[in-house]
Amino acid sequence: MRRGTNLPAVGTFNHTVVLDAIRRNTEPVSRKEISATTGLALQTVRNAVEKLLADGLITEAGKRINGPGKPEMLFELNSEGRFALGVHLDPTIITYVVLDLRGRIVAESMMHMPPEGEPEEIIATIGAALDRLIDDSGVDRTRILGIGIATPGPLDPANGVILDPPLLPRWRNVPVRDALSAATGFPVILEGGPTAAAIAELWLGGAVAHDDFVFFFLGSGIGFGLVLDGQVRRGSSGNAGSGGTLFVPVDGLGGGRRVDMLGRLATPQFVVAQAVADGVVDKPVPENDTTAIERQFDRLLALADGGDGAAVRILDRAADLIATALVSTVNVLDMEEIIFGGPFWARVEERFLPRIAAIVDHSPDRETRHPIRMSSSKVHGDVVAIGAACLVLDDTLSPRPTDLLITV
Amino acid sequence: MRRGTNLPAVGTFNHTVVLDAIRRNTEPVSRKEISATTGLALQTVRNAVEKLLADGLITEAGKRINGPGKPEMLFELNSEGRFALGVHLDPTIITYVVLDLRGRIVAESMMHMPPEGEPEEIIATIGAALDRLIDDSGVDRTRILGIGIATPGPLDPANGVILDPPLLPRWRNVPVRDALSAATGFPVILEGGPTAAAIAELWLGGAVAHDDFVFFFLGSGIGFGLVLDGQVRRGSSGNAGSGGTLFVPVDGLGGGRRVDMLGRLATPQFVVAQAVADGVVDKPVPENDTTAIERQFDRLLALADGGDGAAVRILDRAADLIATALVSTVNVLDMEEIIFGGPFWARVEERFLPRIAAIVDHSPDRETRHPIRMSSSKVHGDVVAIGAACLVLDDTLSPRPTDLLITV
Repeated sequence: MRRGTNLPAVGTFNHTVVLDAIRRNTEPVSRKEISATTGLALQTVRNAVEKLLADGLITEAGKRINGPGKPEMLFELNSEGRFALGVHLDPTIITYVVLDLRGRIVAESMMHMPPEGEPEEIIATIGAALDRLIDDSGVDRTRILGIGIATPGPLDPANGVILDPPLLPRWRNVPVRDALSAATGFPVILEGGPTAAAIAELWLGGAVAHDDFVFFFLGSGIGFGLVLDGQVRRGSSGNAGSGGTLFVPVDGLGGGRRVDMLGRLATPQFVVAQAVADGVVDKPVPENDTTAIERQFDRLLALADGGDGAAVRILDRAADLIATALVSTVNVLDMEEIIFGGPFWARVEERFLPRIAAIVDHSPDRETRHPIRMSSSKVHGDVVAIGAACLVLDDTLSPRPTDLLITV
Repeated sequence: MRRGTNLPAVGTFNHTVVLDAIRRNTEPVSRKEISATTGLALQTVRNAVEKLLADGLITEAGKRINGPGKPEMLFELNSEGRFALGVHLDPTIITYVVLDLRGRIVAESMMHMPPEGEPEEIIATIGAALDRLIDDSGVDRTRILGIGIATPGPLDPANGVILDPPLLPRWRNVPVRDALSAATGFPVILEGGPTAAAIAELWLGGAVAHDDFVFFFLGSGIGFGLVLDGQVRRGSSGNAGSGGTLFVPVDGLGGGRRVDMLGRLATPQFVVAQAVADGVVDKPVPENDTTAIERQFDRLLALADGGDGAAVRILDRAADLIATALVSTVNVLDMEEIIFGGPFWARVEERFLPRIAAIVDHSPDRETRHPIRMSSSKVHGDVVAIGAACLVLDDTLSPRPTDLLITV
């Protein structure tokens, strides 16, 4: 499934292959080294380097003397040659980032989701916030490639439409891609939050050790970003990764177990509802307000950290349910790596990660016995907003073998 | 994840591209047409055609007159240019097939799994049975590319080892690939049953309408074959598709639901156990004998067909549990197509398919609302044995873009 926006390509396939080779090197590289890593003929590399220099995508980075003969010119990515904007539209917080070509954050800002207002007005607000962020960052507008926006699903990414996310009740069939593009003048890509996070890991994450991994996303909802054979997998309609719909047993692993879906058990909203029912925290006020829920979730965490037994039990149960769903997922997809992140993950990480890891490692329900690497995302900042911006970099800069016409 | 056996490749990348173009055409094609579909230069096609003719993989198939000028020579696959052997090692039945290059069955046989005997002896029996089948089929041994063998998992496909399948209790760490290769003199590929079935669908199935599909396998166990972007996905250790490990609610969709894993609820063994517990059929004798279980499963089906309410309820429940697990799967992978098959599927198809389709289509737990195509496999014969042989064809005949070194 290809997304519906084709951002302008940067040069031909060979240009992107050369750019990719330069980008993936932390050290400056010579034309000969590029030729060796890419398999491209030296003359092809020469031509590509010339074009990339002219386009401002790479810069000269000194010379290297290798014995007698002419010194070799070295090249590196021109980090400020292009920029990408990323937006994470979460039900609670909207986060904005500007990334440079290396995926480094040049500027960022955030705001609470307006509690009132139609989607059209909120999209105008997003456009204005991006405009301010660009001004504050001082980046050259002509060097901005486009905007990636990540939102809760289900989506129609091919047409850039938010369909009917349970977590965004006022957003029904909203053509966010075209509306945001009209508001800002930039091309826009729409993507699901967990998939955007997986893209950020692929681009920037030191955590990724394998070609196949699941990004476990804990935000207002729960979702998976799926990477198989080094590529994100979006499914037929671009909505893969709906991890909140997995059934899990509620009462541990004994007989007579009850069952419900993970998304109705382990999201902050439902964990808080359980804590309210058990008399551990007060009802959020107003009741369905995401910010109020967040406040009570933090209160529950503070109680658990203070040793409150009931609070600990509620949080442990949420971790156990997540672990059980991950055992199913690992069995179906045979994954070797799970990366955890999302707006709520950092708060629960110390409590959840060792517990989840122990269950996934030792579950009698595991089909395979190989070790599974589990770690928190190493991407600093809002991994989803960063991933949304990486999408833009990815769409314009990555070589795609599928675009290659065989003409040998 | 690549399998550990590299069968001898048939020519270079371009040769396989040309062969693939000829294979995919039901009608004979000219060199010009091959050049147009593949993007290869006419001279490259000429050279490849010459080599493929010399190797006996294609044959001349008449001429076509296009206006004035020389008539065009046409080519088609030489169906009998090569053959592949397939083995489906099911806990109940072992099935053998010989396929020609088009994937048509040239010969087949089957036998019950010997109730006694060490894996080594059974592998020798398999070797002898293949030997007899080759003799009976009259195919030229020098034209046999190799053997594909599909078994229950978990497996170590990279090393060709059957690890510890619950369904094959005597098979623990059995190096079946090397043992069968030693017994027969042919190269061998080991694969999981549901994945082999998915390969058969990709090669031969008229049923496949989409690039992404799940093959739902109902044999002695339950499993998924996963195809994303037109490729089977085996996961990190080659054991993806363990669908029997998904949790499902047992008692319909009301409150207070109990839960267990699909593989402990909806496989023939457990359906029969339920029917025994409910007094609908007698205990299989001997109790854990797969053939005896099969007999009682057929008895249960016959009772349901005769209108026995208790038998109908037990079977309906199994279908409902499968449907619920498929809703989770479709949500996580965002699939548009499910193909059903496997040794037990044909017997339950009429009863299960409409029921499962209705649940998957209308489930309130579905994340997306797009239609999902659900159908039974159109592959005639044992889809797993055929798929195992198709693996051999696939490994030797399919062009792999990843093997292509970019040297433009």
